[in-house]
Formats: sequence, C-alpha cells, structure tokens
Amino acid sequence: MSGLFIAFEGGEGAGKSTQAGLLDEALRQRGYYPVLVREPGSTPLGEHLREYLVAGQPITPPAELLLFEAARAELMARRIAPDLADGAVVIVDRFAGSTVAYQGHGRGLDLERIKWLNDFATRGRYPDLTLLLDIDPAIGLNRVQSRQLSFGLLDADADRFEDADIAFHSAVRRGFQEQAAADPAGWQVIQGNHAIPDVATAVWRSVSPLLAGRNLRRESV
Amino acid sequence: MSGLFIAFEGGEGAGKSTQAGLLDEALRQRGYYPVLVREPGSTPLGEHLREYLVAGQPITPPAELLLFEAARAELMARRIAPDLADGAVVIVDRFAGSTVAYQGHGRGLDLERIKWLNDFATRGRYPDLTLLLDIDPAIGLNRVQSRQLSFGLLDADADRFEDADIAFHSAVRRGFQEQAAADPAGWQVIQGNHAIPDVATAVWRSVSPLLAGRNLRRESV
Repeated sequence: MSGLFIAFEGGEGAGKSTQAGLLDEALRQRGYYPVLVREPGSTPLGEHLREYLVAGQPITPPAELLLFEAARAELMARRIAPDLADGAVVIVDRFAGSTVAYQGHGRGLDLERIKWLNDFATRGRYPDLTLLLDIDPAIGLNRVQSRQLSFGLLDADADRFEDADIAFHSAVRRGFQEQAAADPAGWQVIQGNHAIPDVATAVWRSVSPLLAGRNLRRESV
Repeated sequence: MSGLFIAFEGGEGAGKSTQAGLLDEALRQRGYYPVLVREPGSTPLGEHLREYLVAGQPITPPAELLLFEAARAELMARRIAPDLADGAVVIVDRFAGSTVAYQGHGRGLDLERIKWLNDFATRGRYPDLTLLLDIDPAIGLNRVQSRQLSFGLLDADADRFEDADIAFHSAVRRGFQEQAAADPAGWQVIQGNHAIPDVATAVWRSVSPLLAGRNLRRESV
C-alpha cells in the first residue's frame, strides 16, 4: 500500500482546518482510514515548536524556516511516511507549500534554499494532491482576527491589521498561486470565500477520483 | 571592529564549559569584552529547544539536526554576529563542529548536507579558532554521569553507559579529530584529561596570540 497524501494550503482564514476536518469525516464515513495532522504539530516535537511560535516569541526568519522544517521532518518520519505505508489517506493542514509561500514569497528568503530544505525534511515525498483554498487576505485575516497562530505573521499584537500585514499576506497569496500554476497536475485551486458546504463539495470532487485504483486501507465493517 | 570568535568543542565531560568560563574570566580581567554563549541556548528560541532536548523527548535524527541548526541560526543572528561587529571576543560552548561530529559521524547523517546546513545557519561565519578538548569517551562520560544533556545521546536512561554509547561517542571523537586534522590553522587540539589549570594554560597559550593586532573592544578603565 502506498496510501494517498492530501495537503490543504492557503492563507489565514481560508478554511483549511475546517475543510480538512470535513474531508477526514467524509473519508471515514466511506470506510477509508484517514489520518489528519497539522503543521507545525502532531508530534511531541511539533507541538513543542508550535508553542513557541504561537506565543509570538522572537525569532529571525532563517531560524523560523529551520524550525518549520524540523517540525516537518519529524512529522514525515513519525506519522506521514508510516501511515502512508499503512495505506492511510493522510491529510495535512499545511505542508511544504506554506514554507515556500510564507518564508519565501512573504519573508523573502531564497526559494532555492527553501526547496533544498523541503526536500531534506520531506525526504522527497510530496502530496499526491495539494488543495489551495484561495482567499483575499483582507477577508481571511478578518475571519481569524481572534486567532493566535499565523504561519508567518507571528505578531503578538495581531488583533488589528496594518497595511504591512495585508502586503505580506498578499505576497504569500501570490506565492501559493504561483506554486499552483507551476504544477497544475499536483495542485488544485478552490475558492475559499464560498460557503463551507460548497467548498467541501469542491474538495470532494477533487479528492474522490484519486481514491479509485489505489490499494487503500479500509476499515473492516 | 570584527571581533574574535572562539569555539570550544569536544565530547561529553571534556571540560568545555569550565574552560569557556575560565577564558571568559581571563579576558575580562585583561580588559577585553568577552561574550560567552552556549549551544543550543543563549536566545529565547535556543533555550526553548534546549528544554526539549534536555528532557530526552523523542526526536528523529534529521529533525534533531534541523533543531540544532535553528538554534544556531538564531544565536548567530541575535548574538554572535552583532557582538563580533561590536568588537567582542565571542566564546561559544559548542558550535557547528559538534553537529558534524554528533549528527554526522555519530548518527551517520550525510556530511555534505550537514555542511550545507551549517553554512546556512552560520551565514558562512565560522570561528577564528576552534579549541578541541579531546578526551577518551570512557573518561568523559564518567565525568558527566549525573548530567542530563548530551549533544547527541538523548537517552532518558543515561545514568549508565552501554557499549553502544561508547561506540557512538568514539565515532563522535573521531569526527572531532578529523575536523581538527583537516584544518590545522583553524583548530587546535588540547588534551582534556589534564588538570583544569593546565588545560586553561594551554587554552590561553592558543588564544592570546590572536588578541594582538585586532581592533577589539576594551572596557574603559
């Protein structure tokens, strides 16, 4: 079994966690064996690193990049790779594409170096399908106004948005869009500003064709 | 001012922290401006990562490597580079050489990849002098029997030593020795099993010639 590896990507407030949870539920109802993980997190190391990032502690961009890659390497080794080998449908809430978008396009770190680090942390195993929930940052940021963690905007004072935030998240959005355009077979773009059930329908339309013809683990009924 | 950058390297119980502290004191007494930092640590991020490593929490070798590099990138950006620019003598208790020895020679990770990561985290700024306190692992490990943190042996059960530990630390020692042999201008080997004042004398003999002819910051007297 080689499993099926699905990533949700997108800016703040695009609905990634909601849609990842709905996809997990839809797969479970159909007898598949989904595993839902988030980045950074879902391992003891990942959660320890997430704590630091959520608290808005100081961190320079290169260290932040390495921290996300450490969490990713651990998640890949301990969860994603074994679960895929076990025939699971692994759903990740953010993955390597977020690093390209946030640390590359957003923070301006070198894209070639980010690619090197992503290859190292993922051991070259990338999602079979990445779903980009695309949303205007002005809408997305308002949705998450009360939330703490942004993958790139680690501002303790994040209860209001400055022009600089909008500029940063617009660059991040373009970073996601460019990745999707460069790999149309591997990425699908879904409008994130639609109603939750409509987005879920679009997600299912993208995922369901990939379930057939794979030797995926099914729960015994 | 470009400062002076001194690293202490060596296995467990070689006396690095003791000697780094004595060098710091000797420089201070002579009116220099030393800054003593440790790896991982000496920044909020570094201390947060150190907590995880000290607790003997689970971690895979690639993630461990990336974690040390994240701590190093932060230390370089926030402390070492600014302090060197300020004319300080920066003393580090472990640096990139430990990653080569522990994660490379000890854990068996690819040395070329480690070099790439060290270059990224250090921004290419390596110590002007690395002092390798060389010691037989059997002696060094007995010295630290009650200590928690090893740079590579993160075994919660580290209160006794197995043959596997000795083999690991012997590989690490060879890793340090090979680095010193490959760069005789940048590394000096000092026997770590001698008495503390004798080692301190050897350290001072190596460091003092580098103080002359540099525009180092002096404390006003």
